[in-house]
Amino acid sequence: MAAAKDKTLNDLFLDTLKDIYYAEKQILKTLPKMAKAANSDKLRAAFEKHEGETEGQIERLEQIFELLGKPARGKTCDAINGIIDEGKEIMDEYKGTDALDAGLLAAAQAVEHYEISRYGTLKTWAGLLGMKDAVKLIDQTLQQEKTTDGTLSKLAESEINYEAAA
Amino acid sequence: MAAAKDKTLNDLFLDTLKDIYYAEKQILKTLPKMAKAANSDKLRAAFEKHEGETEGQIERLEQIFELLGKPARGKTCDAINGIIDEGKEIMDEYKGTDALDAGLLAAAQAVEHYEISRYGTLKTWAGLLGMKDAVKLIDQTLQQEKTTDGTLSKLAESEINYEAAA
Repeated sequence: MAAAKDKTLNDLFLDTLKDIYYAEKQILKTLPKMAKAANSDKLRAAFEKHEGETEGQIERLEQIFELLGKPARGKTCDAINGIIDEGKEIMDEYKGTDALDAGLLAAAQAVEHYEISRYGTLKTWAGLLGMKDAVKLIDQTLQQEKTTDGTLSKLAESEINYEAAA
Repeated sequence: MAAAKDKTLNDLFLDTLKDIYYAEKQILKTLPKMAKAANSDKLRAAFEKHEGETEGQIERLEQIFELLGKPARGKTCDAINGIIDEGKEIMDEYKGTDALDAGLLAAAQAVEHYEISRYGTLKTWAGLLGMKDAVKLIDQTLQQEKTTDGTLSKLAESEINYEAAA
């Protein structure tokens, strides 16, 4: 590890890569719980699909660690832990209610937006650092996250929340 | 508070309003620290501008509490606390380096995306609940957050990060 004053964008890139690697692993553990809790079949299917995508995203991160010649290692990410804790709280507090799915959707969208923010940042930095292969890998994941967020937004505006409002 | 099984989308809306109200107040406390830490004048100016906007966003939330006939009260938001803690860690670890501004930008964009996610959810729910005035207020803030995120993205791709990569 470079001494504090010598730290560069390369170090920041690696630190942030470790942060999102930890985050993705936590998300992978949480998605099956969210799928199990969902009342709507469509929402359950969306969570299950994203579980598979998350596995691919973790593999892409491992490829980037390899490009850097560094071991793939996570670093505790307080942000994702906080976001997931809030989701768990909603699952507990709204268990058995018609509003549960709306709450699960909101929690999942907070997760997606955290990822969109982190991958957007990593893509910019990889570009500035001239890491073309990393840019491609990060962009694949970023597009997947944006598509997932769009799917969740459509579900949130459709029958799932109408049931909760009824 | 409604018994667990009777909880509805109205309760979820109010809970989430309390969550983002707490979050905005934490952000308002944090922005001056980020502005002070920034090396770039443009980044400092962006943080200072957003501080003023955040005050307006808090007022809008207070108007929505009033529309609901409820006292404006926050509820600890683990997500924003985690996101802000990560930002503080970056400020400590990269203090005095050329990469600091890139780290500050990344932290600020994680905050923006959390807000975009929460206000997007609240806007959808306000629509489903027939709260037209709330939809308008939330949408004003949502557009402001998206504009801020765009400004930060442009700064992240411009000279600020180039300095860090040099």
